[in-house]
Amino acid sequence: MQDKRKGKSLMDKIKETTANIKGLDTKLMEEAQERLDSLTKPLGSLGRLEELAKQIVGISAKESPKLKNKVIFTLAADHGVTEEGVSAYPKEVTAQMVYNFVRGGAGINVLAKHSGARVVVVDIGVAEDLKSSPELVIRKIGYGTKNMAKGPAMTRDEAIKSIEAGIAVFEEEFKKGIDIIGTGEMGIGNTTAASAITAVFTGRSVEELTGRGAGVDDKGLKNKIEIIKKAIKVNQPDPKDAIDVLSKVGGFEIGGLVGIILAAASKKVPVVIDGFISGAAALVAYKIEPKVKDYMIAAHCSVEIGHRIILDYIGLKPLLDLDLRLGEGTGAALGISLADAAVKILTQMATFKSANVSEKIK
Amino acid sequence: MQDKRKGKSLMDKIKETTANIKGLDTKLMEEAQERLDSLTKPLGSLGRLEELAKQIVGISAKESPKLKNKVIFTLAADHGVTEEGVSAYPKEVTAQMVYNFVRGGAGINVLAKHSGARVVVVDIGVAEDLKSSPELVIRKIGYGTKNMAKGPAMTRDEAIKSIEAGIAVFEEEFKKGIDIIGTGEMGIGNTTAASAITAVFTGRSVEELTGRGAGVDDKGLKNKIEIIKKAIKVNQPDPKDAIDVLSKVGGFEIGGLVGIILAAASKKVPVVIDGFISGAAALVAYKIEPKVKDYMIAAHCSVEIGHRIILDYIGLKPLLDLDLRLGEGTGAALGISLADAAVKILTQMATFKSANVSEKIK
Repeated sequence: MQDKRKGKSLMDKIKETTANIKGLDTKLMEEAQERLDSLTKPLGSLGRLEELAKQIVGISAKESPKLKNKVIFTLAADHGVTEEGVSAYPKEVTAQMVYNFVRGGAGINVLAKHSGARVVVVDIGVAEDLKSSPELVIRKIGYGTKNMAKGPAMTRDEAIKSIEAGIAVFEEEFKKGIDIIGTGEMGIGNTTAASAITAVFTGRSVEELTGRGAGVDDKGLKNKIEIIKKAIKVNQPDPKDAIDVLSKVGGFEIGGLVGIILAAASKKVPVVIDGFISGAAALVAYKIEPKVKDYMIAAHCSVEIGHRIILDYIGLKPLLDLDLRLGEGTGAALGISLADAAVKILTQMATFKSANVSEKIK
Repeated sequence: MQDKRKGKSLMDKIKETTANIKGLDTKLMEEAQERLDSLTKPLGSLGRLEELAKQIVGISAKESPKLKNKVIFTLAADHGVTEEGVSAYPKEVTAQMVYNFVRGGAGINVLAKHSGARVVVVDIGVAEDLKSSPELVIRKIGYGTKNMAKGPAMTRDEAIKSIEAGIAVFEEEFKKGIDIIGTGEMGIGNTTAASAITAVFTGRSVEELTGRGAGVDDKGLKNKIEIIKKAIKVNQPDPKDAIDVLSKVGGFEIGGLVGIILAAASKKVPVVIDGFISGAAALVAYKIEPKVKDYMIAAHCSVEIGHRIILDYIGLKPLLDLDLRLGEGTGAALGISLADAAVKILTQMATFKSANVSEKIK
């Protein structure tokens, strides 16, 4: 990557991408609304599916979008902060789960298949060298972040590189055709990073937005809260500088997802946001370029309490509330299926006229 | 049907069906829980999907259920009470929409296809003779109900026949293979019937549980409430006698759905309940045989305010909350897709052992 950057500043790729994020196509959205209102159903009776269909028309700038190519990006990385005992699972689970993704045995594999999506698994910072596989994209920024309780999780340069890696991963897959994406992640310790990011940007207390992650007990939760507070105190991330926040208390997979979200929006591709960690990435992306919000679809509201705070802050209303807290992109997979259903309503239903059905009594 | 009933009392078929509704297989449910807990994900992290998978194991009494054959029953009938101006759409829309179902242009066709379900359309009481078609099951109990504001919507005999017709329709389709069903309906005026049924059984006020249906305005809503009150006053349905309530303020499609729900439960088939009218049918079925509750999956919570009251009364928690209010089985179609996803989680994910992933730190 160094070669490509000759003569360019470090942020150029990110700036170029965000510059391509435009507003939605409101004219086509109005036309979509007219079509929705002409379909054989009481006005507005398919509720949020109708809103979703309209949003996807606006994003894609296509009158009759088809969500044929569905991709879930599941990015994995490790977190140095795990040495503080913030997680219920040992650190090596990150790598083990990547192999599980590659073999197709994880929750995301099952739900992505159910929704007709393919999963792109990316090692963006797992702490060990993973066996190469055609099913695994390797874009390592480092062997896990450093312990944020002691200093910055990564350098500013690494934070930028993680975002750029996400952009590059998206652009590579985009060549094969993408109509909608979902975000996903795996990284033991990453709810700690997500909580820290959320606290810094929203100004809410660490206690309010820190949950049990994969399942720490009461004592573990108390420790986790203390560590997050310490990380914020030690690093003093600047909420006005999204890259600063990402570098000091973030993670490589979170940075990568920021890049994927920005890149998707720049290519007019709807982004279905998964749970809390994906939400933290969405928050960083939103802080870099607020216009990206219109491209986001919140799949669900996680059990992780900080997630609701993120969604409210950005202004996103989740589609599902199924007490999920797995991550990986599992909620996004279900959200993609709803988006697909919504678009089919718009494009496949008969109109009152075509079906010869009487309209409402005036 | 008369011949078959010789020597049998009118209620025999219903009694025979309800007698076959047993409790769920709790032993298999415990085993399903053990398997869920062994899968590569934090304990319980797939929330309601896990509960759903377990419930379906208990219902089907199969260790590894497969939801291959998915059927949505969409029953159509007319309502005499429409002559009181309770609906925003003219009565002839019921028949027009049945033709739309048969041609595949309605919301339910699109969403059922999306979820891999087939739609069985049943004329159980449309006010006109419909053109026969291989896509349409004709089981007419009458040409619409009578105006409940003036007297009983149907006779007790007709109410029983409508339930039996539902049982017969289910049993006929069951021969072709059914693993899960959804309920659906079409009938201009049927939110009026559903509101009346709900008021009688729950004791809540008509005002509290009457909504705008397909879209009446403020004046229309006020009139609708008055008519429902009048219907209850005129008919004095006995909440202790479910058949009495169905006959006096119900509808043929509601009775048919009662039969379908009871028959499905008797054959160990999970029933995904759609919106308000399906909910009213579920309520009648629950009043006939409370054990049927365990077989029910509430797909969503409708915009129709009475629906939430029904769900709370029976004790069902909806999966989706997407501001739907179309009926036809559209919400059930989406619910079936979630049920399918849930079962796949149970049956297709790797275990910690098989995937060689480390378990939680003790």
